[in-house]
Amino acid sequence: MKKIPVGILGATGSVGQRFIELIANHPWFEITALAASDRSTGKSYREAVNWLMPTPLPPAIGRMQLQPCVANLPCAWVFSALDSSVAGAIEGDFAKAGYIVHSNASSHRMHPEVPLLVPEVNGEHLELLKRQSFGKGKIIANPNCSVIGLVLALKPLLDAFGIEAINVVTMQAISGAGYPGVASLDIIDNVIPLIKGEEEKIESEPYKILGRYVSGRIEPSTFKISAQCNRVPVNDGHMECVSVKLRNKAPAKDLIAAWRNFSSIPQHLNLPTAPLHPSHYHEEDNFPQPKLHRQLDKGMAVSIGRLRECALFDYKFTILSHNTIRGAAGGALLNAELMARQGDYGCH
Amino acid sequence: MKKIPVGILGATGSVGQRFIELIANHPWFEITALAASDRSTGKSYREAVNWLMPTPLPPAIGRMQLQPCVANLPCAWVFSALDSSVAGAIEGDFAKAGYIVHSNASSHRMHPEVPLLVPEVNGEHLELLKRQSFGKGKIIANPNCSVIGLVLALKPLLDAFGIEAINVVTMQAISGAGYPGVASLDIIDNVIPLIKGEEEKIESEPYKILGRYVSGRIEPSTFKISAQCNRVPVNDGHMECVSVKLRNKAPAKDLIAAWRNFSSIPQHLNLPTAPLHPSHYHEEDNFPQPKLHRQLDKGMAVSIGRLRECALFDYKFTILSHNTIRGAAGGALLNAELMARQGDYGCH
Amino acid sequence: MKKIPVGILGATGSVGQRFIELIANHPWFEITALAASDRSTGKSYREAVNWLMPTPLPPAIGRMQLQPCVANLPCAWVFSALDSSVAGAIEGDFAKAGYIVHSNASSHRMHPEVPLLVPEVNGEHLELLKRQSFGKGKIIANPNCSVIGLVLALKPLLDAFGIEAINVVTMQAISGAGYPGVASLDIIDNVIPLIKGEEEKIESEPYKILGRYVSGRIEPSTFKISAQCNRVPVNDGHMECVSVKLRNKAPAKDLIAAWRNFSSIPQHLNLPTAPLHPSHYHEEDNFPQPKLHRQLDKGMAVSIGRLRECALFDYKFTILSHNTIRGAAGGALLNAELMARQGDYGCH
Amino acid sequence: MKKIPVGILGATGSVGQRFIELIANHPWFEITALAASDRSTGKSYREAVNWLMPTPLPPAIGRMQLQPCVANLPCAWVFSALDSSVAGAIEGDFAKAGYIVHSNASSHRMHPEVPLLVPEVNGEHLELLKRQSFGKGKIIANPNCSVIGLVLALKPLLDAFGIEAINVVTMQAISGAGYPGVASLDIIDNVIPLIKGEEEKIESEPYKILGRYVSGRIEPSTFKISAQCNRVPVNDGHMECVSVKLRNKAPAKDLIAAWRNFSSIPQHLNLPTAPLHPSHYHEEDNFPQPKLHRQLDKGMAVSIGRLRECALFDYKFTILSHNTIRGAAGGALLNAELMARQGDYGCH
Repeated sequence: MKKIPVGILGATGSVGQRFIELIANHPWFEITALAASDRSTGKSYREAVNWLMPTPLPPAIGRMQLQPCVANLPCAWVFSALDSSVAGAIEGDFAKAGYIVHSNASSHRMHPEVPLLVPEVNGEHLELLKRQSFGKGKIIANPNCSVIGLVLALKPLLDAFGIEAINVVTMQAISGAGYPGVASLDIIDNVIPLIKGEEEKIESEPYKILGRYVSGRIEPSTFKISAQCNRVPVNDGHMECVSVKLRNKAPAKDLIAAWRNFSSIPQHLNLPTAPLHPSHYHEEDNFPQPKLHRQLDKGMAVSIGRLRECALFDYKFTILSHNTIRGAAGGALLNAELMARQGDYGCH
Repeated sequence: MKKIPVGILGATGSVGQRFIELIANHPWFEITALAASDRSTGKSYREAVNWLMPTPLPPAIGRMQLQPCVANLPCAWVFSALDSSVAGAIEGDFAKAGYIVHSNASSHRMHPEVPLLVPEVNGEHLELLKRQSFGKGKIIANPNCSVIGLVLALKPLLDAFGIEAINVVTMQAISGAGYPGVASLDIIDNVIPLIKGEEEKIESEPYKILGRYVSGRIEPSTFKISAQCNRVPVNDGHMECVSVKLRNKAPAKDLIAAWRNFSSIPQHLNLPTAPLHPSHYHEEDNFPQPKLHRQLDKGMAVSIGRLRECALFDYKFTILSHNTIRGAAGGALLNAELMARQGDYGCH
Repeated sequence: MKKIPVGILGATGSVGQRFIELIANHPWFEITALAASDRSTGKSYREAVNWLMPTPLPPAIGRMQLQPCVANLPCAWVFSALDSSVAGAIEGDFAKAGYIVHSNASSHRMHPEVPLLVPEVNGEHLELLKRQSFGKGKIIANPNCSVIGLVLALKPLLDAFGIEAINVVTMQAISGAGYPGVASLDIIDNVIPLIKGEEEKIESEPYKILGRYVSGRIEPSTFKISAQCNRVPVNDGHMECVSVKLRNKAPAKDLIAAWRNFSSIPQHLNLPTAPLHPSHYHEEDNFPQPKLHRQLDKGMAVSIGRLRECALFDYKFTILSHNTIRGAAGGALLNAELMARQGDYGCH
Repeated sequence: MKKIPVGILGATGSVGQRFIELIANHPWFEITALAASDRSTGKSYREAVNWLMPTPLPPAIGRMQLQPCVANLPCAWVFSALDSSVAGAIEGDFAKAGYIVHSNASSHRMHPEVPLLVPEVNGEHLELLKRQSFGKGKIIANPNCSVIGLVLALKPLLDAFGIEAINVVTMQAISGAGYPGVASLDIIDNVIPLIKGEEEKIESEPYKILGRYVSGRIEPSTFKISAQCNRVPVNDGHMECVSVKLRNKAPAKDLIAAWRNFSSIPQHLNLPTAPLHPSHYHEEDNFPQPKLHRQLDKGMAVSIGRLRECALFDYKFTILSHNTIRGAAGGALLNAELMARQGDYGCH
């Protein structure tokens, strides 16, 4: 089988680096183009990048020359790790020019024709592509890094019990802010109770992701949601303290069973990047923890723990997911694998 | 005016050290006894302690000999920084023997005859002492470190608008676990979603503290409260993400005014350790932060910020207080100052 | 080929955990016994351990029952991760009883009959075993965690240019102190300029390791060495700033070539845990760094960088090695692989 | 006595903030001008600054308007916290225009007419000002932040025993890199073995500072020095592992006595910012530590500990000083106090 040639937009940033790490030896995709801002154009990737991944930079990638982010790259699909300030226009250009764009930026997430995809949760939303009208190409969006873990934990509860209300307080890793991102003077021995735009994303994206595809459009979910977001001195892994009110309250053991039995399209299709179990419930009362569980199932699973009754809602619990793997590059890659496997949805 | 001779129980621990730092030059109290576990008895304080305060150990204190925690210390009042596993019995012995005991332990907090005191919030609860029956002495309890900041922020809202429900998610500093406390391998680059017994304290103590003294007993408050507690890699300062439902919703500016105008007995009496303003609202949208605000007003004020509307409750906001100053030694010291100023409540 | 049954002494500690992680799927060894202090005896491993490794605890290991550290374990070889305060006597008992003991403790390191082994550096020291007289078994010692990285970096220089003097200043990770080890209050936002006994080990062990085996004994090296040791807030990976005076000064490029060409017995024998290249020189002027390079070559290689001339010595440079992999469990495992491959040295 | 009106150049950066914190209530100086880069010009200081000091921003300072860094500020003296890339030209302009410039930048440090001043060490170097020819004003330079602590520790040894050679390995705080400075992704759980230009400064500035003023010029010292510099995850306080070879070796107790008895011009003149004891020797074998001792004597003293014999040099020991107080703003302020007290050196 011939590999699909792919390009990475914003290749030098921290999500761009994760894309490279995850795709470098991928069975279905081959990196044939790397693009970055003008400042880096023309340099070799090795010269331009401050490589921060724990695995060494693959030498062949290091020798590739960085190209500008314009829609004539030698590839068919692109993974976009662009900053949202520029992603909207550039990704639109690529779609217009016929590329399949897997975007990690927020620009197109709430566009009614763009699937906001988490394959275990709403694979059927890919149907939106059939009517998508950006041009010959397509845009598929990856949700916000905090949202992906959240909807993976909520989906089994929504299906089994229904959900009325969700309260979320996050403790988010510094890698979520990109590189250089958070200044060390701001975060060592500190917590910052603001991540710009993050609460708004958590309070909007789940409605679409957990909504239903009905005759060409997404009918949003109807629960209520409120979020408070904090930055903590952790390298990777977003923690979220969640409280939920269910439509039909059930015993705690049923919620745990719902998480443990959760398995969906990527697992059934055995996609290369799919976690074996997308949602993992931990019995230990001090789990999950970023340092111990962010790498669970290749960093693609959400860890859940501390389920207990709540005086205000029905239940409260804690979740953890790897923000630059499941929450960014790994999530977008799984989206691409689903598309590659399921066929073209009208793509050329 | 002659100073009251005081002793410190559990003098070598981290709260014990804070007591010494705060009382060493106090205008009303004089440290005349230091007591610790048998292991340290007989040593000089300097030999026995691993001094971790930012100010140098006062040489005269360093030369004092550590005594056992038995009720024959050469002092009239004691400040107890004992671990809860032993505090109950020892503090009872001291009260029986006639000492005024200012306790930072949890042992007697919920005892119906013991005031659970935050001077700005419930100074009138000292009336309980008149009927307290431990012996010739008295026990006054300091609330849990997370609770003190919380009730200081809630009291102005309760008085002005009434409160129906409170949701709290904490991000707590390592100094709250004492010394050696949290292992560095457990917390660097990590968050731990469990602090044993902490959620139970936050879900019970505020009912008593914010309750009303009515004819010899405390009538508890009637709101609902739910808490989730986390340990984060911060040295000092507990952060809390709070959501509240008020009985009478009011505009945000009225809540801010309630906090800014809050002033109570310790301020009116000009107690030495009282903060000028017990609750401080910050306009900056990324405040409060532990590193920047824990020392505010000598570490005795609660910092509040990010007040905004909530889709589930009425409002959400973030608070911060210094857990070993306002939340422990400084809080107990303010309690003692209030008693010293207001007279004896039947104390000998 | 039948696997050698091995036991792990001190299995619940941080080095014990690393042994389990590294040996659980080993092609030549099979874990058949886990032993720990009396406190844990009788519990399942899963109950007793606070598992801190980034990979999940293998379920079969978790179900094993912990046994006391006495010399009747159902295995032939033991890996000792015991604390030095008890290791001397227990390891002696095991050797007397016929076990091959691979020790990570300091107790027997300087014993003249015990090889202080780093397979790339002094594999021929295993000859000492032929005359070793502890009993029917044997004791092989693993050097101190800071020393292993140091001698791996020095060996190519010693062979090519001779060494007259070495100055070392270390910045060591918290995992080197075991668990719970360093209190978080002591090390977050801090450096501790003392690691008890560490400087003495760095100033003695290299003489033996880099010495020559001559007719039944080790003739120590003759350079001079001075060390200063510090603890820094890093999870894993010891950094060392090294200055060396060579016997025969050579151009910097020759030192780099010596490191890059260094390859020794474990590489020639293709031992399972051997790094491909034991010493790796980095060109980037801000390398090596613990976070980026501690995992290099499975955590078994030493990283070297910043070679430059020195006004006092000939050269200065920085090295990094993973203290609980190459510097502890991985190092002892490589020792065991060398023995398993090379035959019995008089072992039964 | 009328206060001297002073301006601060680069007022919004981290050293600029320290200047404000230290000078806001100064008995001799009054802040009458704040200047910053064009980006901030015209804003109020409060709007433009990301205030990171532990004490609140004085409201009157917060209301001051930021001016451009041109030499017509309404003040007589300026404290420069400018980046070295622009400091040279701007400071020269101010000196030409008649201002007394106290610079913390490296631009003029090695200029033969500029005193590189540490008042306890080389107060007599101010004599250089009499011949300085920048214009009607003067430039006085503050050494590098690592150098100030070092020369304060070396000066008593140099005077008493002479010094032949110095080896230094630093572990430096993140605040030394300014704001935003070091990215948190680069330094949490990490050490960076490079600080650009720092080793060169440590290997050159001490020659001048510890040199002798002889008939209008500085005769440099003649010891040898080598430095290795590292960045560690510590907020404030530079640690340095020092090895020294003395001209006349003496017992360790004599070195300690030399440090303890060290007292110099700022102490004799009782300058407002002078530490009581400029060099403090700690007996505890795990001292000094940044977290415990950086604030010693208002952050103006150097802490020294762990003096012990060395196999290569005569002695080794560890020093600590606060890099943004003694090593930057506080040091420059002490320079200014010395000048203000000693008279005009030809200044107008």
